[in-house]
Amino acid sequence: MLGRLYENQNCSAARALEIVGERWSLLILRDALFGGTTRFSDFQRSLGVAPNILAKRLEDFIAAGILKARSFSPETGHREYVLTAKGRDLKPIVIALTAWGDRWAAPNGPPVVLEHEGCGGRVKQQLYCSACHDNPKLSDVLARPTNASRVAGRR
Amino acid sequence: MLGRLYENQNCSAARALEIVGERWSLLILRDALFGGTTRFSDFQRSLGVAPNILAKRLEDFIAAGILKARSFSPETGHREYVLTAKGRDLKPIVIALTAWGDRWAAPNGPPVVLEHEGCGGRVKQQLYCSACHDNPKLSDVLARPTNASRVAGRR
Repeated sequence: MLGRLYENQNCSAARALEIVGERWSLLILRDALFGGTTRFSDFQRSLGVAPNILAKRLEDFIAAGILKARSFSPETGHREYVLTAKGRDLKPIVIALTAWGDRWAAPNGPPVVLEHEGCGGRVKQQLYCSACHDNPKLSDVLARPTNASRVAGRR
Repeated sequence: MLGRLYENQNCSAARALEIVGERWSLLILRDALFGGTTRFSDFQRSLGVAPNILAKRLEDFIAAGILKARSFSPETGHREYVLTAKGRDLKPIVIALTAWGDRWAAPNGPPVVLEHEGCGGRVKQQLYCSACHDNPKLSDVLARPTNASRVAGRR
């Protein structure tokens, strides 16, 4: 069994993947972010994931602070799962995955388009340079280590 | 053992995750995309991943067309692994993960910043509406199914 952590990696992408990088995680979050899904049975129906795996993912998301549980039926004890601000902020990750899949793995065309609410226009993700206000090409974006990169191991 | 595919999901994010969603995959690609890493031993040193897993991931990436193998030492048979256009286009996914990790899981500050080559400015990812030319808030981005979403099952 592979672990979930990347303990020797001083990297924000690794930290993010520790929280959302397991199998089914980002598809559960896709349903929460774009489908407004909050109930166990609705996640299960949409994904066809085994209930024990879904339950584990939802509990892990609560522990990580990206979902919170809310009772919607005090009689039955049923709960719903609602995104926190930290969870809602995961949307760009799902958008980036979707955009790549649309470009490289959607022979029949994108099954879903992103729309600007109200305006109705198509929404894209792009890069923006805060100095020259240009939209850099991917090949013109470099990663430069900061002082925080010298903190050893897990941060 | 969990599978790698999401066969009942007609979704570009699911297609992308089938290719880059396994443990270590996106960190291997991070090193290729931002570190210029091409050699097995360099990936292994950077990641500390078990060699059998690294070898499997690299072969899967070649099969998926995001890396290609190139001989760099005909005498020893050593190969290097070079990103294709399809692989280079994964950069926004790593950028989105990094940005989220910087915001929510980097108490000492971002270990790495993204720089616009030549200009030196900080690069951010943002949303852009092709109709009104605004930068929509995350909460104003909706997913709307297209005709392609009606194609049943795997596409």
